[in-house]
Amino acid sequence: MPADPLHRKLLQRTDALLGEFTEALTEYARVPTISAHGAAFEEGAAATQKVLERAGAQVRRYTADGGPPVVVGEVESDPARPWVILYNHYDVQPVDPVDEWTSEPFSPQVRDGRIYARGVSDTKGNTVAQALAVRALREEAGHLPVNVRFLVEGEEESGSPHLEALTREHPELFRGAGATIEATARSPDGRPVVALGSKGVASFELEVRTARVDQHSSLAVLVPNAAWRLVAALRTLRRDDGKVLIDGFLDGVDAPDPEMLRYLRRNSFDPARYQDEYGVTSLLVKGSRFVRLRRAYYSPTCTINGLVSGYTGPGSKTVNPAVARAKLDLRLLPGQTAAVARDRLVAHLKARGFEDVQVRASDGFPPASTPVSSPFAQATLRAAKKAYGAPPNVVPWSLGSSTTAYFTRAGTPALEPPGVGNSGSRAHAPNENVRLEDVPPSMLALATLLLGVGTPPAPA
Amino acid sequence: MPADPLHRKLLQRTDALLGEFTEALTEYARVPTISAHGAAFEEGAAATQKVLERAGAQVRRYTADGGPPVVVGEVESDPARPWVILYNHYDVQPVDPVDEWTSEPFSPQVRDGRIYARGVSDTKGNTVAQALAVRALREEAGHLPVNVRFLVEGEEESGSPHLEALTREHPELFRGAGATIEATARSPDGRPVVALGSKGVASFELEVRTARVDQHSSLAVLVPNAAWRLVAALRTLRRDDGKVLIDGFLDGVDAPDPEMLRYLRRNSFDPARYQDEYGVTSLLVKGSRFVRLRRAYYSPTCTINGLVSGYTGPGSKTVNPAVARAKLDLRLLPGQTAAVARDRLVAHLKARGFEDVQVRASDGFPPASTPVSSPFAQATLRAAKKAYGAPPNVVPWSLGSSTTAYFTRAGTPALEPPGVGNSGSRAHAPNENVRLEDVPPSMLALATLLLGVGTPPAPA
Repeated sequence: MPADPLHRKLLQRTDALLGEFTEALTEYARVPTISAHGAAFEEGAAATQKVLERAGAQVRRYTADGGPPVVVGEVESDPARPWVILYNHYDVQPVDPVDEWTSEPFSPQVRDGRIYARGVSDTKGNTVAQALAVRALREEAGHLPVNVRFLVEGEEESGSPHLEALTREHPELFRGAGATIEATARSPDGRPVVALGSKGVASFELEVRTARVDQHSSLAVLVPNAAWRLVAALRTLRRDDGKVLIDGFLDGVDAPDPEMLRYLRRNSFDPARYQDEYGVTSLLVKGSRFVRLRRAYYSPTCTINGLVSGYTGPGSKTVNPAVARAKLDLRLLPGQTAAVARDRLVAHLKARGFEDVQVRASDGFPPASTPVSSPFAQATLRAAKKAYGAPPNVVPWSLGSSTTAYFTRAGTPALEPPGVGNSGSRAHAPNENVRLEDVPPSMLALATLLLGVGTPPAPA
Repeated sequence: MPADPLHRKLLQRTDALLGEFTEALTEYARVPTISAHGAAFEEGAAATQKVLERAGAQVRRYTADGGPPVVVGEVESDPARPWVILYNHYDVQPVDPVDEWTSEPFSPQVRDGRIYARGVSDTKGNTVAQALAVRALREEAGHLPVNVRFLVEGEEESGSPHLEALTREHPELFRGAGATIEATARSPDGRPVVALGSKGVASFELEVRTARVDQHSSLAVLVPNAAWRLVAALRTLRRDDGKVLIDGFLDGVDAPDPEMLRYLRRNSFDPARYQDEYGVTSLLVKGSRFVRLRRAYYSPTCTINGLVSGYTGPGSKTVNPAVARAKLDLRLLPGQTAAVARDRLVAHLKARGFEDVQVRASDGFPPASTPVSSPFAQATLRAAKKAYGAPPNVVPWSLGSSTTAYFTRAGTPALEPPGVGNSGSRAHAPNENVRLEDVPPSMLALATLLLGVGTPPAPA
């Protein structure tokens, strides 16, 4: 690799920004923006504006369909240059169980080289790091080689219920040469991760009612029991090894891209790691590391998120419940849609005589991905390798779900770049944290990506 | 039937007692004796004593193993005469959902010929009616033809956790020529009901844990889900038509007594009635009325009382739950025991690879019955027919569970005699009530039974 003075300057500069990062994130993460509680949207949008202004962005707010503010900050260097969109969200997950936090979730604290608070890894820390990286690049390079649009919304943790409306009212916001969607967590062995999209998710509530009212359980010999009925219906949906049995559910799933499979084979991550992390006695998937990886990424899922019927308090109560409910989510792969999944689920239940199981669909995210061979994906992989000094672990999409599809549908390649998180960042869980050492390389990778998009390598 | 002056006097006298019944029950039902809340045991015992003193009983209290008072009231007429035990309880079910009560559950109210309050039918109304019937018999006959022991405890609705200890500490209290256990509810067509025992019940909690903590549902592709695991285990326990599939569970169940089946065939009750009463679209059992009756009484059950896992609040939450729990009850027939049922359940789960499903047993009642051909049962049937002017509907045991076994184990024939309730009395539910017109015949039936036991018919 030839000497690269700008790279060396960016390396030093991103290291030097760690103090400002910590200060800015501490301020940002104090705002209790739990979207599930409808909390602090106004304060969250104002704090986001302040972060984006550190990048020198011109900030405007958009709202669609009565939703909370979407904060858009643009740093325009030259209208002729490509636009890169940096998507994040200022809302965070609820903090329960709050007793399990070592320090207060909205009082950020630095301990042992980590900053702890709700939202620091998902994803306020990424917004701060990216804003500082854009400023560093502009200052060190003398100009920005691309135009940058930060797009930071306030409801991602609630399924972004108003973002699709914004894509219709302001499609121009979603168009660019590429978009980064939040950011990934670093692998345990230090390699950066690039996820070329995200699985979709469709959530449902199933409800069975077998009688108008609960009865004394002595009548269970005659009166149908809603919990038994729900158990019978659920049992038809999934095999014990995780395979989804909903009729026709897998129809239309895109075959794995052979080139992507080659990347996946070189991926150093072993999902068996989850066994220790979550205290699991045995994983669903047996076989080699590659078998586990392929199953994890190329399998849709059908998951019971919640189950409730009858009496659930202490002790016993001899009741024959009239109502039972289950919450399910289906993780979808490209080629599947939530609407089709819903129709298949309803038809599957009906075909087995479970017309009495009511199915209600709620919000979700469509699946989406960007081909690994696309220029934006390749630029991201090169930038990651250069910033971290190691080839990234590349996955076709994250196992979770996000707003990727709202960008790819607009023709914009979108993916999750390396971020400030690590595999122990505990996003959505108590003691969410970011290791400070992971911050400079994620800034450097973003700056390098923007450089790569703005000044593509000369054709061979 | 020959003229029977004593019967005519008792008929008039029990009618005349309705005013005192209403007054005494109104006072008794004001005491909020919810045993599940550990409430008002002392006040409940004192109020019970007052009721029993209306019969002229000598009242003592017993406690066993730290339990609340068991109130025992004896009316001894002649040590040479047989003892009849009248078992009831002063505790009541909780009142939830309290919004569905038309009047306050502990402010008894008479409306449209019924008295409404928690416990009036289950079973304070029976205690009051029986006390007044004993006094009426003594006064009208000039003496009591038997000795009577009222035994009224305070924890039946919680599974009588201290009553078995009392049978060991004071076995003499449970010995007699016969015992009545609470009382039945009158059939919709006006016929009295005699239940010659009660099904047993054994309650369990099943718990599955698949990981130390819940995870984001994106990991469900790899990490086992406790709710799915529980659903799989539960599904092996019961067939859709209600048949219990636990290996060996039915071993040892006594074959139906052919004579009892002849009585059951003449029973006028049609369980299809529950369809309207509970708003059920279809009953589990198809076939004739007799088929339904036989299934209801001669089938044990396995019932999900409660089910809970993961997120059960409003909206959706993408969680892969680490823990799932079910509450189950098994209704047992004579020949089965709770201890054997537990062992069979554990062995059944283990044999299917569900060693990870933890089984915890809690309190219950053993099954018990008294042969229909026994003198005490026959005396009860004759008394019911004479008091109501119609043959009783006879069942081998009630579908629910009670303390019958604690008497039969002591060698005392025990059964549920006709009581003050009706099929719309809503025991355990809001708006529990007793129809005042049902009270005099239940008093008359008890007085007639005591006469029958005290002066058995001359042998043919």
